[in-house]
Amino acid sequence: MREITGNDLADIASGAAILGTGGGGDPYIGRLLAQSAVREHGAVPLVPTADLDDDAVVLPVAMMGAPTVMVEKLPSTEQVGLAARTLAGYLGRELTHIACAEAGGVNSLIPVVAAAQLGLPLVDADGMGRAFPELQMVLPTLYGIRATPMSIADEKGNRSVLDTVDNHWAERLARSATIDMGCSAMISNYAMSGAQARESLVPGTLSLCAELGALVRRARETHEDPVACVASRLRGRKLFSGKVVDVSRRTVTGFARGAARLSGTDEDTGREMVLRFQNEHLVAEAEGAVLASVPDLICTLDHESGDAVTTEALRYGQRVSVLAAPADPRWHTPEGIALAGPRYFGYDLDPIGVAG
Amino acid sequence: MREITGNDLADIASGAAILGTGGGGDPYIGRLLAQSAVREHGAVPLVPTADLDDDAVVLPVAMMGAPTVMVEKLPSTEQVGLAARTLAGYLGRELTHIACAEAGGVNSLIPVVAAAQLGLPLVDADGMGRAFPELQMVLPTLYGIRATPMSIADEKGNRSVLDTVDNHWAERLARSATIDMGCSAMISNYAMSGAQARESLVPGTLSLCAELGALVRRARETHEDPVACVASRLRGRKLFSGKVVDVSRRTVTGFARGAARLSGTDEDTGREMVLRFQNEHLVAEAEGAVLASVPDLICTLDHESGDAVTTEALRYGQRVSVLAAPADPRWHTPEGIALAGPRYFGYDLDPIGVAG
Repeated sequence: MREITGNDLADIASGAAILGTGGGGDPYIGRLLAQSAVREHGAVPLVPTADLDDDAVVLPVAMMGAPTVMVEKLPSTEQVGLAARTLAGYLGRELTHIACAEAGGVNSLIPVVAAAQLGLPLVDADGMGRAFPELQMVLPTLYGIRATPMSIADEKGNRSVLDTVDNHWAERLARSATIDMGCSAMISNYAMSGAQARESLVPGTLSLCAELGALVRRARETHEDPVACVASRLRGRKLFSGKVVDVSRRTVTGFARGAARLSGTDEDTGREMVLRFQNEHLVAEAEGAVLASVPDLICTLDHESGDAVTTEALRYGQRVSVLAAPADPRWHTPEGIALAGPRYFGYDLDPIGVAG
Repeated sequence: MREITGNDLADIASGAAILGTGGGGDPYIGRLLAQSAVREHGAVPLVPTADLDDDAVVLPVAMMGAPTVMVEKLPSTEQVGLAARTLAGYLGRELTHIACAEAGGVNSLIPVVAAAQLGLPLVDADGMGRAFPELQMVLPTLYGIRATPMSIADEKGNRSVLDTVDNHWAERLARSATIDMGCSAMISNYAMSGAQARESLVPGTLSLCAELGALVRRARETHEDPVACVASRLRGRKLFSGKVVDVSRRTVTGFARGAARLSGTDEDTGREMVLRFQNEHLVAEAEGAVLASVPDLICTLDHESGDAVTTEALRYGQRVSVLAAPADPRWHTPEGIALAGPRYFGYDLDPIGVAG
């Protein structure tokens, strides 16, 4: 894939929502926003990280906030451009490329909107290989790349530039601003050089999203098991099949926090699973034991269609398959685990690996 | 007074604390900060508003936050320069003058620190003629001057630039950032031209502070009544003499909010007064009737020394005189009252005037 056209967006959104591990935003909204931008401005060139010049100026853009709010308060496309332009102005640099901070139904597509609007190519990569809830949780943090200067913009036209002493302070100040702005906002941060992008990003994420989306679509068409296809492609495994029997979810401190209880079906009949999430799924427990945890991916897919079910969309009665897959190996270093492992989120356990 | 030297600072701090109406910060802290800056950088030229060129670039600086916190978490002088430099950088303008946003024991002296550090003259004026708790509450708001772009900086080195759709949004986003930064922060906002400063600021505030401070000092030396001298100079009147018998005070939503109950002494023996405050005194009630309210000034002065007693310093057993004085007449226009009258603060009453 050398460019992203309108025809690619459905697959990218569908695959991105799988890598979003329950977070990263609703793929339907992401697709609509990108479709409108590509229709207006044309296809977006996609650039492999390997092709980036050392001195390229790469700017990731993303939505920040609670996915529960994003589905009701849609971003405006002006807001996307405003965040990127505000940061570019503060930096006093000419941007050469847009990038994705994370994979997700909205957050893989917002950068398509920004790239289309600004007439810039998009880097085929992202900062995590998945979605995580807090903004310091990107691989560039492990490479000492600063989150700030970062911009944050709302749909009313309010904007702010943060310049902080570390990435945790960036998260803290940006989260408060996001809450004030109505619990969802557009951000642009981790401005980096081409050399830094080659080193710190996860390469090929948008291509992988498109591939996963196509895989699910074709499995459906050929009556194969889409969940098995996804598990195989991600070198992961299915943890559980079940029906959602309870969801507790609160939008607090700027996040969608909660837990879903599943009652087993098929081979899991008689068993129970609990999924705990903060925007993204954090741990999957069955019979009191943790079967998978961050930093590895825990994905909820619709049992029939294989489509990802985001945490804000989990509903009583849904039949889902829970799948776990290994994260980028850099997340399993001591620094990666300190940044986004179970203990950071308050679970007193070592990460439960799921290497396939 | 054509310049501010180390010898002027005690009187300015003392007088500014009176105009601070209970808020604006502790005058002892303000004096120490300014003394250290003037000792290091020399005297600060003081410029009347009338002498400003139309195209001067005037930048007010101030502390934002809860005075209860400011007395424990002292600002660093680096922080003062950081806020001004960050905003100047964002504006891409060469500053020509520093100004005071409000009158207060800290907030009339912080601009002296900034002017000394940056080698700039200080405008003899302020944005209110008193202190108010929220940042849109300045006369420049009535002239359509925008609070933003504004900068906010903490003592750790975190900083932020806000650019909002109106001054209320500036207050909201800056208040959250201030709370995150530990409930006190340095800000710079309402950048304005010389022409705007001439029109919208209250002229002569620093000279008035120095005059009030000298008045109280001399009254003490000559055994006159300092409270009567201040009341006369401000064309106000003494409302009450009493002893503090109760103070309830909470540092919430980034403010010091509370009430003080006074039991009358001297001619007020047998009566009671309640002062309600949000950083600054908002209303003074006696026997269920409101005797004075914002936008007019309600000042608590030590019964003996005539020194202002700030709301965070009110203590059981203190003997104080409560004095009311008229605010700048522009605060009594419908727009001024909407911005900082009793109803804005949740008191269902028209302003109680105290014109002397």
